[in-house]
Amino acid sequence: MAEKITPRSVDYSQWYIDIVLNAKLADYSPVKGAMVIRPRGYAIWERIQAEFDRRFKETGHQNAYFPLLIPMSFLQKEKEHVEGFKPELAVVTHGGGEELEEPYCVRPTSETIIWSMYKNWIQSYRDLPLLYNQWCSVMRWEKRTRLFLRTSEFLWQEGHTAHETEAEAVEETMRMLGIYKEVAEKHLCLPVIAGRKSESEKFAGAVATYCIEAMMQDKKALQAGTSHFLGQNFGKAFDVQFQGRDGRLEYAWATSWGVSTRLIGALIMTHSDDRGLVLPPSLAPEQAVIVPILKNDTKAAVLAYCEKVLAELKAAGIRAILDADDTQSPGWKFAEHEMNGVCLRIEIGPRDMEAGKAMVVRRDTGEKTPIDVLGLGARARELLDAMQTSLYERARAFRIANTKSVADRGELLAFYGKDQGEGSGTAAASGGFAEGLWCGSAECEAELKAETKVTIRCLPEGRQEGIAGACCLCGKPAKHLAVFARNY
Amino acid sequence: MAEKITPRSVDYSQWYIDIVLNAKLADYSPVKGAMVIRPRGYAIWERIQAEFDRRFKETGHQNAYFPLLIPMSFLQKEKEHVEGFKPELAVVTHGGGEELEEPYCVRPTSETIIWSMYKNWIQSYRDLPLLYNQWCSVMRWEKRTRLFLRTSEFLWQEGHTAHETEAEAVEETMRMLGIYKEVAEKHLCLPVIAGRKSESEKFAGAVATYCIEAMMQDKKALQAGTSHFLGQNFGKAFDVQFQGRDGRLEYAWATSWGVSTRLIGALIMTHSDDRGLVLPPSLAPEQAVIVPILKNDTKAAVLAYCEKVLAELKAAGIRAILDADDTQSPGWKFAEHEMNGVCLRIEIGPRDMEAGKAMVVRRDTGEKTPIDVLGLGARARELLDAMQTSLYERARAFRIANTKSVADRGELLAFYGKDQGEGSGTAAASGGFAEGLWCGSAECEAELKAETKVTIRCLPEGRQEGIAGACCLCGKPAKHLAVFARNY
Repeated sequence: MAEKITPRSVDYSQWYIDIVLNAKLADYSPVKGAMVIRPRGYAIWERIQAEFDRRFKETGHQNAYFPLLIPMSFLQKEKEHVEGFKPELAVVTHGGGEELEEPYCVRPTSETIIWSMYKNWIQSYRDLPLLYNQWCSVMRWEKRTRLFLRTSEFLWQEGHTAHETEAEAVEETMRMLGIYKEVAEKHLCLPVIAGRKSESEKFAGAVATYCIEAMMQDKKALQAGTSHFLGQNFGKAFDVQFQGRDGRLEYAWATSWGVSTRLIGALIMTHSDDRGLVLPPSLAPEQAVIVPILKNDTKAAVLAYCEKVLAELKAAGIRAILDADDTQSPGWKFAEHEMNGVCLRIEIGPRDMEAGKAMVVRRDTGEKTPIDVLGLGARARELLDAMQTSLYERARAFRIANTKSVADRGELLAFYGKDQGEGSGTAAASGGFAEGLWCGSAECEAELKAETKVTIRCLPEGRQEGIAGACCLCGKPAKHLAVFARNY
Repeated sequence: MAEKITPRSVDYSQWYIDIVLNAKLADYSPVKGAMVIRPRGYAIWERIQAEFDRRFKETGHQNAYFPLLIPMSFLQKEKEHVEGFKPELAVVTHGGGEELEEPYCVRPTSETIIWSMYKNWIQSYRDLPLLYNQWCSVMRWEKRTRLFLRTSEFLWQEGHTAHETEAEAVEETMRMLGIYKEVAEKHLCLPVIAGRKSESEKFAGAVATYCIEAMMQDKKALQAGTSHFLGQNFGKAFDVQFQGRDGRLEYAWATSWGVSTRLIGALIMTHSDDRGLVLPPSLAPEQAVIVPILKNDTKAAVLAYCEKVLAELKAAGIRAILDADDTQSPGWKFAEHEMNGVCLRIEIGPRDMEAGKAMVVRRDTGEKTPIDVLGLGARARELLDAMQTSLYERARAFRIANTKSVADRGELLAFYGKDQGEGSGTAAASGGFAEGLWCGSAECEAELKAETKVTIRCLPEGRQEGIAGACCLCGKPAKHLAVFARNY
C-alpha cells in the first residue's frame, strides 16, 4: 500500500527499499548479504533476459554452462584478476564429508574456469571464434548490501569469447557494448552514456573496460553493464595457443561482458515515484489492470462487460488482468496496482458500461483518458507505446538538466558540495554528472575520490577527438573528456 | 566422427561417453565431479526448459530465485532431510577473507531455505497457495560420476508449493507428475511409467514420492523426474502456520518436484545408435542439414539452389542449416551430422538440381526418400513428425519386449541373472523391467538389492486396485504391484 512508502524527498535510500519490499520484487534472506528474488521481480528479470538473449543469439553467440566452483589455484594464474577478486571470495573447503585437498571458490566471475576449458577446445584458427555466454549466479562477498544493487549473490549473464585477432576481439567488445546500450535504452528506458573506464576503474584482468552508465533520480551514477577487452591476458595465463593462418602458434584474444539483476535496481531508481513502482511497458509483467466499479444492482453486468474488455486487451497482445476481488474497494485497488507498477489502469463502472466507454489512467503521468471500448486494444497499445517513449525522454531530460560542464576544480567541488554519506540525505545532495577535461593521471582521480567520493564514471565514446585544454583537476594538459559522478 | 564411437554391443557405458564427448554435448571439467555443458548440449536443455516452463506457467506457477547458500542449521530442522543430504554437501566455511560464524552448504535442494521464507509470506489461507519454481544449479557431492547422469553439480528446476489443505497438495503432486509424463512422452519421446516410490526409495523428508521411470537401451531404468508430497513436514520444521477459514492456526501443506539435465542423458541412452546422437525433432537444435554435392563446373549453381531450399525450410519453421564447407567431402559431412543428431539430411547434387529433386535421409532409420523441391518444407515437416512418433513407438516397443511378469523369486532371479557390475558388460546383462507382486516389506527390497542390485523402481499408478496373490520375493500376501529393475 502506498502509505508505506517513504517519500524520496525525505529519504531516497529508504524510498528505494520500501518500493522493492512493498512491490514484492525481492526480500531479505537469512543468508548474510543474499536476497530472494520474488516472482514479481523475477518476472521482470525474465523479460530483460529474453531481450538480451535474443540479441546474443542473433549475433552468433551460444549459451553454455560451466562449473559453479573454481579451484583456488586458477584464480592465481592472472595476477590482477586474483588481486581484484580474492577479498570477495566464498570458499568451499569441505565436500562429501571430507576436507578437500584444494579448496574451491564459488565463482565470482568465470574467466578462469572457462579459459581452462578453452585450452582443450582451441587448437587452430579454424576453431575460432568461440562466442559463448552463460546465465548463472555469481558470488562476491559484500559487507554492506542493498537489494538488487549490491548483494553477495546475484544473477547475471557473462559472455566469454575467444578470437583469432586483436581487431576481432576489440570489435566484439564494442558490439556487445552496443547491444547493452540498445536494450538499456529501448527496453529499460534508461538513457545511458557508453564509454571507457579509467585504468583505476577497469575490470581486474582487462586491458580495457567499457561500460554503460545511467543517472538515477538522486543524480548518482549507476554502472549498468560492462564489456571488457581482455587482450591475451587469459590466453597466456591458461596457455591457450592456436595455430594461425601462417602456421605459427599464437595466444587467443579474449573478451568478456556482463549485465546483472542490478538492472532491476536501475529500473526502479530511474522511473518509480512516491506511489510505487513505475515500469517500462515492454518489461512490465502486467501492462493493464481492469478495475470494475461494482455496485450491487449492476455487479454481474459490469463484470461480464469487464471480461469482454479483458479478452479484447489480450487479443491485442496486451498483458492484462482483471481485478474482480469484491472484498476490496476500488480506491484500495488503485493504490495497490500503482504500487505494483501496472502501466495502465482501466476503470469501468455502470455508467462507463452504458456509454461503451472506459476510463484509462496512465501509471507514469496519472493522465486520465476516456476511451471508447470499441477499439480499446489498439488505443491501449498506443498509450503503452507513448509511455515507453515518455519514460525514456523524461529520464534523458533529467540527466541533461543535471549534467554540468566544469572547467576547473572550483567548479567541480561547488557542483558536488559536501558528501553526505551513503544512505543519508536527499536526492539534491548528489550533484549529478560533471563533464570535464582530464589529464589521465590516477593521482588526480584518487585525490578527488578521497575528498568527495566523486569518481570518473567513463570517458564517453565518440567524444574523445581533438581534446585540448587543461585538466579540470590539476590544470595540466588534458588527454580525455571525462564524466564525473558519485555512484552506486 | 563415427569411427570414434565404441559400439553398444562392445561396451554400452563407453558408447554413452563417446557420444556425449564426440557430439560435443558436455565435457569433463577440472572441478572434481562437475561437468561443462557445451553449447550443443545446452541448446537441448533450453528446449526442454521451454516445454516445462510453459506448462508450469499455464498451471499458475511463477518463477523465483532463492539463495545458493543455505545455513547448515536449516538442514537440521527436518530430521530425515538432513540424514539424506548431509553426506553429499559442499560446505562454505570462509567468506570475504574471514571464517564464517556458521558454515553454509551449497544447496543440494531448496526446501529448507524456501520454507524459511514462506514463514514470512504466509499468514492466512488467503496467502495460499504459493506456487513457486526456480531454475538453478544444485550440488550433491559424488565420488563416481557420469556425464549428465550423475555429477556433483547439475542444472534443474525445483518447484516448491504451499497449500491450505492436504487434498490440494496431493492434487498438485499428481498434476506435476502428469506434466512430467506429458513432456517426457511428447517431446523427449520417452515412454515412462509413472508411479509411487517405495518407502526406502522416497525423498528424504517426503511423505510420498512419485516418479517417472524410463527404460534405457541397456534395459536399465532411469528415474527421469520426481514429484513429492511433503505433508506438513516442512511446514512444521519451519513453523509455517496460517489462519484457516475457521480462524484456527494450521501448518501449511507442501509439495516439491524436479527434473534435471539428467534428462539429456536419458534422451541419449534411449534413442541414439552406434553412429551417434539421435534426437527427437521437437528438441533437436538442428532439424535438417543440407549437404550439397559440389563439383567444379556446377558448384555455384548448386550452392545457389541449396540456399533457396534452405530458405524454404526456414519458411516452413524448420531449424535448418546448409553445410557449404568445401574443404570436407560429402561422406565426411554425412558422418559428422549423424554424430551430431541432425534429424534430416538433405543431399543435393547437380542431377537433383536439374530434376528439381532432393534426397532426404532420416537420421533414425536411414530411410532415403527422393522428394520434389516444390513443397519440400511441408514434406520435411511430415518426416520430422513421423520421426517424432516413431522414436516414441520404438522405445515403447522395446520396453514392452523387455518387460516380464514374474510370479516368484526364481523367475525374478532368472530374469536378471548375475549382476556384471556397473560400467561393465553388455546391454543384454541388465534384464529389463520385471512386474511382480510385493508384500510391502522393506526387508524383501533390501535383500533383493544386496543380492542383485535390482530395486523397486515404482508402484505404477492406476494398477494398484484389486491386488491379490503372493509377494514374488517372500511369498506372503501381496499389497502392491511393483516394477523392478536395475537402475542408473
